Amino acid sequence: MAEMMKLFHSPDSCARAVHIALEEAGAAYESVRMSLGHGDQRQPDYLAINPKGRVPTLVTEQGVLTETPAILVYIAQLFPQSSLALPADPFAFAEIQAVNSYLASTLHVAHAHKLRGSRWANDAAAIEAMRAKVPESVAACFELIETRLFRGPWVMGERFSIADPYLFVFAEWMEGDGVEPSRFPKILAHRNRMGDRASVQRVNAMRKG
Amino acid sequence: MAEMMKLFHSPDSCARAVHIALEEAGAAYESVRMSLGHGDQRQPDYLAINPKGRVPTLVTEQGVLTETPAILVYIAQLFPQSSLALPADPFAFAEIQAVNSYLASTLHVAHAHKLRGSRWANDAAAIEAMRAKVPESVAACFELIETRLFRGPWVMGERFSIADPYLFVFAEWMEGDGVEPSRFPKILAHRNRMGDRASVQRVNAMRKG
Repeated sequence: MAEMMKLFHSPDSCARAVHIALEEAGAAYESVRMSLGHGDQRQPDYLAINPKGRVPTLVTEQGVLTETPAILVYIAQLFPQSSLALPADPFAFAEIQAVNSYLASTLHVAHAHKLRGSRWANDAAAIEAMRAKVPESVAACFELIETRLFRGPWVMGERFSIADPYLFVFAEWMEGDGVEPSRFPKILAHRNRMGDRASVQRVNAMRKG
Repeated sequence: MAEMMKLFHSPDSCARAVHIALEEAGAAYESVRMSLGHGDQRQPDYLAINPKGRVPTLVTEQGVLTETPAILVYIAQLFPQSSLALPADPFAFAEIQAVNSYLASTLHVAHAHKLRGSRWANDAAAIEAMRAKVPESVAACFELIETRLFRGPWVMGERFSIADPYLFVFAEWMEGDGVEPSRFPKILAHRNRMGDRASVQRVNAMRKG
């Protein structure tokens, strides 16, 4: 790449999956850490780059990309020699995409009802009712993943993929979502396996720095 | 394909986007129409195929695929001579993926709070509060699409893509979601443009049949 990519992210968001993927890929990139708590994502300078006011945003020499599942595939395609290499077979690729789409549109959405209920209701009691159901709705997603989607030792089986950092981010949120990790031994073992990877340790070290 | 693909769908669901895509592709497929109102998606025979209890499900000779964005890419890759042909450039592909990911995880989710609020809260008043916000949250998505994502005449510009049938499905739900289509002239023109396509007319005719 002629120009270095720039990742706008927050370590407490799903953008962490993209951050880990960039480390797995061995990409040269600039990291811009945002504080969602401070509302960095709603500042005019950032909205000019990503009008959605969310993270991640990946700025490339060809333009701006948003949406974690899309960015993960993009990084994998840019670094086909890395651990993220995508299968050439359309069905095998679709299976990875299906997992990541489920994580984005079902598991992440269930999780988001804990702190982002105001997206979907204005009433304070309704927002509290949403928050109350998060342990149940998030656990239902992990139940499906544990029993039906997860193959092991990596999400898709023997081969590491872009589904691994993405699942990992949500698995690390389990306790915060009121879900007991021991209910899901395969996902917990995967979480530990991911935690041992150099990519994750580098991203964690940046967080502390 | 040695065996014919089989699509489980409902004309009132986002599976309609996949149905239109199969027609655009000129694919040979079997259509299995489900009634979500009658709970067909929760019958044991169907759950054995798709444990998520949702539509669409595409059964291929290699196995079962779920999640609309994943299936749309799969069909496009299987039929590269069709209108759905994907760009070879990773960035251009990621832009399409980003639109479809947004439709799945933001617009569809906003819409789902109208009839599926029980996924995220148990309390009847909370579910009613969710329903009340749908016109606002869905319109906010269309505002972003109209002003920032949509290029015209097709979603991604001059070239038709798998983003077109997917946007079309949600655009047809506008009135039902309490959103006035005239607020979004580009999306409305696109909806009419899509309605003129032979693929959409064939899918509509199957619905009436």
